[in-house]
Amino acid sequence: MFLTYIYLIAITAEAMSGALVAGRRNMDIFGVSVIAFVTALGGGTIRDILLGHFPIAWTQHPPYIYLTVGAGLLTIVVAKYMVHLRKVFLVLDALGLIAFTIIGCDVAQQLGYHTEVVVMSGMITGICGGVLRDLLCQRTPVVFCKEIYAGISLLVAIMYVGFHYLGIEQNLALAVIFVTGLTLRICAIYWRWSLPIFCYSSDEWD
Amino acid sequence: MFLTYIYLIAITAEAMSGALVAGRRNMDIFGVSVIAFVTALGGGTIRDILLGHFPIAWTQHPPYIYLTVGAGLLTIVVAKYMVHLRKVFLVLDALGLIAFTIIGCDVAQQLGYHTEVVVMSGMITGICGGVLRDLLCQRTPVVFCKEIYAGISLLVAIMYVGFHYLGIEQNLALAVIFVTGLTLRICAIYWRWSLPIFCYSSDEWD
Amino acid sequence: MFLTYIYLIAITAEAMSGALVAGRRNMDIFGVSVIAFVTALGGGTIRDILLGHFPIAWTQHPPYIYLTVGAGLLTIVVAKYMVHLRKVFLVLDALGLIAFTIIGCDVAQQLGYHTEVVVMSGMITGICGGVLRDLLCQRTPVVFCKEIYAGISLLVAIMYVGFHYLGIEQNLALAVIFVTGLTLRICAIYWRWSLPIFCYSSDEWD
Repeated sequence: MFLTYIYLIAITAEAMSGALVAGRRNMDIFGVSVIAFVTALGGGTIRDILLGHFPIAWTQHPPYIYLTVGAGLLTIVVAKYMVHLRKVFLVLDALGLIAFTIIGCDVAQQLGYHTEVVVMSGMITGICGGVLRDLLCQRTPVVFCKEIYAGISLLVAIMYVGFHYLGIEQNLALAVIFVTGLTLRICAIYWRWSLPIFCYSSDEWD
Repeated sequence: MFLTYIYLIAITAEAMSGALVAGRRNMDIFGVSVIAFVTALGGGTIRDILLGHFPIAWTQHPPYIYLTVGAGLLTIVVAKYMVHLRKVFLVLDALGLIAFTIIGCDVAQQLGYHTEVVVMSGMITGICGGVLRDLLCQRTPVVFCKEIYAGISLLVAIMYVGFHYLGIEQNLALAVIFVTGLTLRICAIYWRWSLPIFCYSSDEWD
Repeated sequence: MFLTYIYLIAITAEAMSGALVAGRRNMDIFGVSVIAFVTALGGGTIRDILLGHFPIAWTQHPPYIYLTVGAGLLTIVVAKYMVHLRKVFLVLDALGLIAFTIIGCDVAQQLGYHTEVVVMSGMITGICGGVLRDLLCQRTPVVFCKEIYAGISLLVAIMYVGFHYLGIEQNLALAVIFVTGLTLRICAIYWRWSLPIFCYSSDEWD
């Protein structure tokens, strides 16, 4: 229940952030709608396809379509005021990352997949919306290059699986996961923590 | 039956237009074949995957593979003469957009999806072939930025669903949809109608 | 059995080559892991999705996940020494192309698809990992532009289907296919054989 509210807030925030990226590419209102929708619901879509989990979640919940497309279009109007809300959005985005990851783990677990696939399902749900947004907007996926974003999704997924294995009560588990994930994400942004970068340049290959 | 003929003409025209884009990227004949195939049949493929509708349509109709790949390869030979046929191709492309959209709506409707998903299924079938082509050819999807293309697909899908709801005889419905869609598309090209663009530039985000 | 060993060597080699491309884009260790995984297992994933063959192969074999991600991360450490092994990697890559293609044909054949789809399934398995890698790393897919790579995959697939049709004993068939494919691939690299290129430039379209 709690997770559902967080989820709705998260897909709205993701849709709005997607719309901003689309705006930077001078897309029209259709393009903005698509990017908003894909950023918000693309991760879950890729997860459902990879797990063979049909029908895909959003096809059973038409309100999600209206919510994300509406949030994208609203962004066009309110974009100029959103700069002031930057910090709010970073927190909402972190909440979304955590909620998406937990939901992704849960779906794979209920389908009886291996633990490793459960963890990957969580990460795919958390991250792939942004990857699709970046591909459609012609930029190298941010998540592959910057800050500890994917790492937090991985940690959340492992905590989820671990707490489940240890039989810890679900509400307690959720609380611990959200507090830990949110704290780490905010620290990662504030101190610009990032994973080690692999720089490789050689023309000999290729 | 009528729709099948239009469909075959449309996938041929889409394959040829895809091949031209591949040629602008200096691809080899394999790349041209892939782009031709993907432009023509990629929209239906994405639709079938998203709807969990297996086996995917073209896997059951091998002649479609030969037709689209053949059209792509033929384009290499006839490309220099095609400039003179530009207007013919724009009309064929518009016919294809309408036919693809109608077929996409029909597939989702027969699978019992919600009305909103039926409309989206039509648009996905109509548009995603071109989006895949643009991604594989490294350019921002044209459909997100230019002219009223997606808008016509949306209108066609809504008309299809509406006429079905109202119980209008199918051949009449198809005729009205094709005439309306084609007229609008030609007007959109002629007068360069486009949807409002969302221009956003701020380095503060990201 | 023989094919399984080749397969394991091949996904390791593909993962390492993917990691190098990621390194050229200055990705962090997460990005490198993803690109390694996707380069090695992406072709089979796309094949399974297109054929409606769930659960997807790697979800049933968690060791493949560790193997490919591990190979990607190892690459970061050993990248500077790999230049000397360039020729070894080109051979491993060719082995992988052939093994992936054969496996892809086999999967589609066992699902009862048409011959044309069996051939395409082989090529998709052989090639799409590299296409996904290039898309995620923001470059035009190499396989659409350079050398006879896809052509060898096509030939291998046709030989596989043909030998099966003729009832030739499987080990003999595999031996002939591997020797032919490997020889051709090495010749293609050595003499820089390539397919005809389609160069097209016209601003009138678009």
